[in-house]
Amino acid sequence: MIKEAVYHRPKNEYAYAIDEKSVHIKLKTKKNDVQKVTLIFGDPYDFDSNQNSWISNSTDMWFNGSDDLHDYWIAKVTTKHRRLRYGFLLENPIQSIYYTERGFYKKAPSDASYYFCFPYINKVDIFSPPDWVSSTVWYQIFPERFANGNPSINPKNSLPWNSRRPSQKSYYGGDFQGIMDKLDYIASLGVTGLYLTPIFKAHSNHKYDTIDYMEIDPQFGDKDTFKKLVQKCHAKGIKVMLDAVFNHSGLYFPPFQDVIKNGDNSPYKDWFHLHNLPLKTDFLANYDTFGYVPTMPKLNTENKEVKAYLLNVAKYWIEEFDIDGWRLDVANEVDHAFWRDFRKVVKEAKPDAYILGEVWHDAMPWLLGDQFDAVMNYPLTTAITEYFTTNNINKAEFMNSVNKILNMYPETINSVQFNLLGSHDTARILTLSNSNKEKVKLQMLMQFTMPGTPCIYYGDEISMEGGEDPDCRRCMIWEEKKQDKEMLGFVKKIISLRKQFKVFRTNNNFAFLSPKDRNNIISFTKSIADQELLVVLNNSEFTEKFKLPNKYNQQKVLDLIME
Amino acid sequence: MIKEAVYHRPKNEYAYAIDEKSVHIKLKTKKNDVQKVTLIFGDPYDFDSNQNSWISNSTDMWFNGSDDLHDYWIAKVTTKHRRLRYGFLLENPIQSIYYTERGFYKKAPSDASYYFCFPYINKVDIFSPPDWVSSTVWYQIFPERFANGNPSINPKNSLPWNSRRPSQKSYYGGDFQGIMDKLDYIASLGVTGLYLTPIFKAHSNHKYDTIDYMEIDPQFGDKDTFKKLVQKCHAKGIKVMLDAVFNHSGLYFPPFQDVIKNGDNSPYKDWFHLHNLPLKTDFLANYDTFGYVPTMPKLNTENKEVKAYLLNVAKYWIEEFDIDGWRLDVANEVDHAFWRDFRKVVKEAKPDAYILGEVWHDAMPWLLGDQFDAVMNYPLTTAITEYFTTNNINKAEFMNSVNKILNMYPETINSVQFNLLGSHDTARILTLSNSNKEKVKLQMLMQFTMPGTPCIYYGDEISMEGGEDPDCRRCMIWEEKKQDKEMLGFVKKIISLRKQFKVFRTNNNFAFLSPKDRNNIISFTKSIADQELLVVLNNSEFTEKFKLPNKYNQQKVLDLIME
Repeated sequence: MIKEAVYHRPKNEYAYAIDEKSVHIKLKTKKNDVQKVTLIFGDPYDFDSNQNSWISNSTDMWFNGSDDLHDYWIAKVTTKHRRLRYGFLLENPIQSIYYTERGFYKKAPSDASYYFCFPYINKVDIFSPPDWVSSTVWYQIFPERFANGNPSINPKNSLPWNSRRPSQKSYYGGDFQGIMDKLDYIASLGVTGLYLTPIFKAHSNHKYDTIDYMEIDPQFGDKDTFKKLVQKCHAKGIKVMLDAVFNHSGLYFPPFQDVIKNGDNSPYKDWFHLHNLPLKTDFLANYDTFGYVPTMPKLNTENKEVKAYLLNVAKYWIEEFDIDGWRLDVANEVDHAFWRDFRKVVKEAKPDAYILGEVWHDAMPWLLGDQFDAVMNYPLTTAITEYFTTNNINKAEFMNSVNKILNMYPETINSVQFNLLGSHDTARILTLSNSNKEKVKLQMLMQFTMPGTPCIYYGDEISMEGGEDPDCRRCMIWEEKKQDKEMLGFVKKIISLRKQFKVFRTNNNFAFLSPKDRNNIISFTKSIADQELLVVLNNSEFTEKFKLPNKYNQQKVLDLIME
Repeated sequence: MIKEAVYHRPKNEYAYAIDEKSVHIKLKTKKNDVQKVTLIFGDPYDFDSNQNSWISNSTDMWFNGSDDLHDYWIAKVTTKHRRLRYGFLLENPIQSIYYTERGFYKKAPSDASYYFCFPYINKVDIFSPPDWVSSTVWYQIFPERFANGNPSINPKNSLPWNSRRPSQKSYYGGDFQGIMDKLDYIASLGVTGLYLTPIFKAHSNHKYDTIDYMEIDPQFGDKDTFKKLVQKCHAKGIKVMLDAVFNHSGLYFPPFQDVIKNGDNSPYKDWFHLHNLPLKTDFLANYDTFGYVPTMPKLNTENKEVKAYLLNVAKYWIEEFDIDGWRLDVANEVDHAFWRDFRKVVKEAKPDAYILGEVWHDAMPWLLGDQFDAVMNYPLTTAITEYFTTNNINKAEFMNSVNKILNMYPETINSVQFNLLGSHDTARILTLSNSNKEKVKLQMLMQFTMPGTPCIYYGDEISMEGGEDPDCRRCMIWEEKKQDKEMLGFVKKIISLRKQFKVFRTNNNFAFLSPKDRNNIISFTKSIADQELLVVLNNSEFTEKFKLPNKYNQQKVLDLIME
């Protein structure tokens, strides 16, 4: 047994509370190295004085998949007094060994202090995302490009709708009235959440360079229009999430302009990270910026005034407009202390608001219950894209990646992860798939059968094309004859299936089938209660046969897609 | 190379900021499996468009010791813009391989997004313990047993000082006046910090069952006496740390008594975790308790009133009495949310207050900068005891343990870890050492040459004996002829050496020497600037020869202990 490869550590995805009495315990071992893992657990204070030994119980751990190097194991334990010590018995045909916090032992240590410790389940520390998120299907809208409902507020030099491919600087006049006009269409898809990229007053068409966090950009409408939009969405059972761009402001944010103008005398000079004065706003920017973008000066979120200002923004749009969530732009470059207070403010204003961070890397440090509810699940996006479109990875690598992703965070977080195939930041899924619509469908099926909360980027449902930004931000196609109705039907179908069958949304008993088959068929099952979902995705160019597993003989089997 | 054993994850002891520009990066590999590790690092946004590749630098990683299974590596990196992506090149004679967040590669990936991410060094998130702690030497006092300076406030039935061995219920009348009377003695040791076990009004002699967190226990004196004590300590350059028992109250805490009396009608019923009513305070306690102790009902620290009350306690004793630190009893069973707010309140009241948690297990989840400054370093206590006294572990195992402990937390935390050989909770070090004073000295030398902040349990400096609690809480011996003056001299000497030479207190370039020698000599070196400390500890029954390493030839060598 390769002891060096065995890994466990409490209070992250390896040990976390799922309710006031229970915890999930996970373990990582070298792939194919251990045959059976038993969890040894008990209350730290249960002591048998006759035996001079800690009193413990045991339970089998469930094999939770493997990636390229490791196997994962999981068990759920219910505690008596919300306290837990635990260890592992690892077995293969050659060896049996106990793994504890202090190391490996041939015999189970009798002293509870040797074992791993989950000291106490305090309710307030339990990660508990809003109930509604895991069953929500999102629709992402880039407001400038979705629909133009009020041409009277078009920006200057707006181009006729869809008259040409967008450049970094083009405007077409998309607005809130346009979204409202199309709300029946949106609702007809079955989606129950709307994610809008930034809507506050800004300089660019993408609005990630805010001028005023307390104002709607006039090209989209005014506060009344926005309030009406939220109300109309809510009336249709659709939640609304806004984009919080708190890492940086725009160049034309008045406090930054004040520093440009007044330098050392500006009351705002500590609102940013200045290197020296006077400010140079060209490519030699002498202040911290997002990336190397001088028009996006990084905000000093540690400054008390900045923090108070932004936290008030967070609260204002919830309290006054009843929005349901915040998506946090460049979330990992803002300080943790800020996000901790942000969570308090947001959850106090609306206890079931959804807090979604944009973090492209391992995000566990933000997902400990004190900051975000979830992050944008880019690792899943990457795995799906690399397998189904670019062929960067093969079937085995894809399955490894999916297992790795499913074991990356607590299951409580997996259930609300934001699963996307593309966004305003990436080429469109159809274009990435070389216009192969069948490939797009496979990817959507993968997306919709994973735990989490899936999001459709506006227009993907009607087979819109688009390369990298800004091409992926083309105007929505509203001419019915140019819309792909077949894809539209497919998207509606999988949305409706996901809403109808809970098994689509959970991760219970997830397991890939036939991983060693040479064909390019991905198949996996999940199950809850009396439902089992079998997903079969043929990622080859050819028709392939798939033999239904024997266990389904004499079972009622429903073909949800083909029928 | 055993890739399965390679481990890294950012934002814990494997990657942490040490100042506004720099981070420490660590890596774990299988023991003796990798010969050289190079850190590849750069700014995520530095892109060479000609090469279509991320621009990175590299630096060698320093071998930072090994435990029984793994080698540890460390490097310090200074960032240009406080942002960092990084990966590792692992080499041995057979293989060279790159390790990134996405996995292992034969060639360095050219895409920065593959690498590990330390997104941004935000100042507020940098763990920064109080400056004074790492150079402090503590003296722990159990106030009931240190000195009786005011017999008029003796508890009823107090026994004459040291007239017999303590039982769970005996009283001897130790008090604040006694401590003040002995302050010259304390200062003469060279200690610069006083840690007092609980002093608030309580029922027992140990005072861990609080009755009133806002009052001094009358057997110790009153608030004026305590204020004077703190002032006198400060005048002598001695800091004062109190014990915060916030996990549970005592049975006679008035709010708990109110629940006993008024049950469902008590306004305090949510201050505790009741299972049902009426309360049974015998061994069948129907409420959460510390361990199974019915006289210690667990406080509901999530309740707003309880939280406000305890946070006010934390603030009150700092603001009114100018104490310098809080040691947190049973710290890991209280919710994280409570400790986060506790830190804010404490650091606001006194920015350089020391927050020390009692956590016997892996405490990383409390040491991320938002909760504690350090924990009681019991793993070090255990390693020292098991090697030098109980012989549970051998030389190799001891060295493994020390390396593991030094690699367990960020170095910034190691430098303020509370290193103790014993306390009111354990048998005395001399008794554990079978009265072998030479063994005690070895252990103290080990303790005093480790990074952290060492603590002497009252009386250990004069060779007091004592078995498990309550025997380890005997009255301090003040009859000079019964005090071990030789041990006292030794303790004074090592305290003074530690204060004189900074190299005692750091962990720079720590390395064990001659680990494979068969003798029972532990030797290691550390160095800063022009000083190198060589520690040689002979843990055998015999005189042993130790050959000074050749590198000291023609160097000035000082024998700090024997001369």
